Amino acid sequence: MLIVQKFGGTSVGDLECIQNVANRIAQTVAQGHTVVAVVSAMSGETNKLVSYAEHFSDNPVRAEVDMLLSSGERVTASLLAIALNEMGHKATSMTGRRAGILTNSWHTKARIEHIDPTIMHTALDDGNIIVVAGFQGIAEDGRVTTLGRGGSDLSAVAIAGALKANLCEIYTDVEGIYTTDPRIEPNARKIDKISYDEMLELASLGAKVLQTRSVEMAKKLNVNLVTRSSFSNAEGTLITNEEDIMEQALVSGIALDKNQARVSMRGVVDRPGIASDIFTALAKSGVNVDMIIQTVGYDGTTHLGFTVPTTEIGDAKNIVQIFIDNNEVQEAEYDDSICKVSVVGVGMKSHTGVAAKGFSTMADENINIMMISTSEIKISMIIEEKYAELAVRSLHSTYELEK
Amino acid sequence: MLIVQKFGGTSVGDLECIQNVANRIAQTVAQGHTVVAVVSAMSGETNKLVSYAEHFSDNPVRAEVDMLLSSGERVTASLLAIALNEMGHKATSMTGRRAGILTNSWHTKARIEHIDPTIMHTALDDGNIIVVAGFQGIAEDGRVTTLGRGGSDLSAVAIAGALKANLCEIYTDVEGIYTTDPRIEPNARKIDKISYDEMLELASLGAKVLQTRSVEMAKKLNVNLVTRSSFSNAEGTLITNEEDIMEQALVSGIALDKNQARVSMRGVVDRPGIASDIFTALAKSGVNVDMIIQTVGYDGTTHLGFTVPTTEIGDAKNIVQIFIDNNEVQEAEYDDSICKVSVVGVGMKSHTGVAAKGFSTMADENINIMMISTSEIKISMIIEEKYAELAVRSLHSTYELEK
Repeated sequence: MLIVQKFGGTSVGDLECIQNVANRIAQTVAQGHTVVAVVSAMSGETNKLVSYAEHFSDNPVRAEVDMLLSSGERVTASLLAIALNEMGHKATSMTGRRAGILTNSWHTKARIEHIDPTIMHTALDDGNIIVVAGFQGIAEDGRVTTLGRGGSDLSAVAIAGALKANLCEIYTDVEGIYTTDPRIEPNARKIDKISYDEMLELASLGAKVLQTRSVEMAKKLNVNLVTRSSFSNAEGTLITNEEDIMEQALVSGIALDKNQARVSMRGVVDRPGIASDIFTALAKSGVNVDMIIQTVGYDGTTHLGFTVPTTEIGDAKNIVQIFIDNNEVQEAEYDDSICKVSVVGVGMKSHTGVAAKGFSTMADENINIMMISTSEIKISMIIEEKYAELAVRSLHSTYELEK
Repeated sequence: MLIVQKFGGTSVGDLECIQNVANRIAQTVAQGHTVVAVVSAMSGETNKLVSYAEHFSDNPVRAEVDMLLSSGERVTASLLAIALNEMGHKATSMTGRRAGILTNSWHTKARIEHIDPTIMHTALDDGNIIVVAGFQGIAEDGRVTTLGRGGSDLSAVAIAGALKANLCEIYTDVEGIYTTDPRIEPNARKIDKISYDEMLELASLGAKVLQTRSVEMAKKLNVNLVTRSSFSNAEGTLITNEEDIMEQALVSGIALDKNQARVSMRGVVDRPGIASDIFTALAKSGVNVDMIIQTVGYDGTTHLGFTVPTTEIGDAKNIVQIFIDNNEVQEAEYDDSICKVSVVGVGMKSHTGVAAKGFSTMADENINIMMISTSEIKISMIIEEKYAELAVRSLHSTYELEK
């Protein structure tokens, strides 16, 4: 098999870690596989370089920041190639440029536009292990770019897609994707297989192992993605097509997001377009509104509630105040002691009663549900933050995820 | 004027130093000049990276070492560009690749084969200050190469040649080239102008400011080279064509090399080709023989003496021992308590008696001259090491270099 293996910053945190990574690659090769490794900078390096740039400027020129940051991955890639050669393997490092990663010119957050795998194919044909410096590419003008947060994962997935690799393994410091956070529910179980869509819901809901961008790209390029630990030999979690998963679990996991705040506006004026005006103003000032609820009170006035990330509550307040000052909203309340609990599973598509089961679990625990939103494969509930752990454990048990 | 300014590791040793370099470039620009800066890695960085590579291998793959080491200059170049932009200048960093530095593929000690200044010309036409990552280029196969010791100086000289710059300034931590080592002779004077050929003699004789390679390239490309201090505004030393120096000093400087050892072989067998055999064997084992002296003793046997760098005396002993074992040499003596004092000056070409003056100075001080070698512009003498400083001071005074 052709396997792309991606090792993040903690996996290549120091020279000993890099040697461990070399050993793991050698082990994979010994099993008869062909390996393309993708590496991040040693942990702490990128932050150090960023602090250097900030010494000179609060807003350093982005193209120069890319030139600066891209040096970190070069160091790891070349050291890993040196280690592999010392172990008797033929290995060659490649920059993003040599790996053919072509991006647009949005420096510090570039998007991959195309991969030209010609040089990689030649190197593989020559029997090389390839070690690619992740997180970087080149723009059309030939300057180096970086891909933003989670960029090395993206490099790996894009390379796996371009090379039609059988597998793209993302090595981190956790063993895979769990049915819920094991620190909350000790009975949480590692998931063996999960669909791209479920993973996308779990990723955006706070499972920090994989960035949404990488899962989206894996889905688009049809890349079999595995997350696993670089510190153990345990099998990880395979993220793949729904069709390739034989036995679908009804529910795959429970996600918790405490970074939520609620805005409740009372006495919203009753004119056409008022909701549109408010949410357009919020969007323009960069506030990411998640759930929205509208109710008409017994007295005929409208209530409008919505949730935003806690970090954006200040901006939301400023916007709402404008509508209060214009007498279009009577008053507003802000509450950041809430959280969002979500039940994710493709099985919901075909089975009825999954949502109802969740609601009655909340009722059994006397937990009030403030807001609800649903998709084909997800139910999200806003509840008081103090019930967060209880809700997660109860739902985990209700859907028998420990089994 | 178009000025190439090269800043070495100590000049960019930390973030404050880099800011100072930015200030100096800004000052040069304010005087109406166009600047292309060439920078080394921050001091200590290259050694750190080398130690990383050596952690994995005693003999790391050279192409990977180049990938590794070339990251250091990228960091300095991008930081300097960030600092210059913050100061309101338009500045862009360039890797060796973008600067068009094409080399052969001798990784870790590549030779510059050609410079393609197209991208640099475009950037200059757009009003940019260019900051080039020194010490690096690319080979024909597109992989990064490094230029070995003194590589950033070479980058600067080659770029100055390709851009037909008016001046190539090499900034170091000393103010220029001195008539002799000021720690030995406090009256040593900074030289204002010196010819390429004199500088070559001084460089190879131990003046550590400039590598021979850089001076040779400056001579070949007709680049006006200046060495000066990055920590003061003092004018440095201009190294240029002999023809461009109006008033030639008879003698330009006195060089001292203590890293010398002498081998004296007595009773060398009298057969044709014996000297050739000995020196061929020495060359093959990598011993750099400098001076050679052959005398026929009163008893008819031949004495053969030569000097080598102190570090190579062990290898020399091994070779000589073979000839002793073969009964072709009777015995040998080794002496590392010697040194080489050299008088350098283009004036010697046209003036007679310069050498004689030096010999009589030695006689006046009762210093025995063991060996002598001369070229058109240099006289070198081997003397006992204990007289080194006395000889330098006396010669400095004899040739009135303090004036």
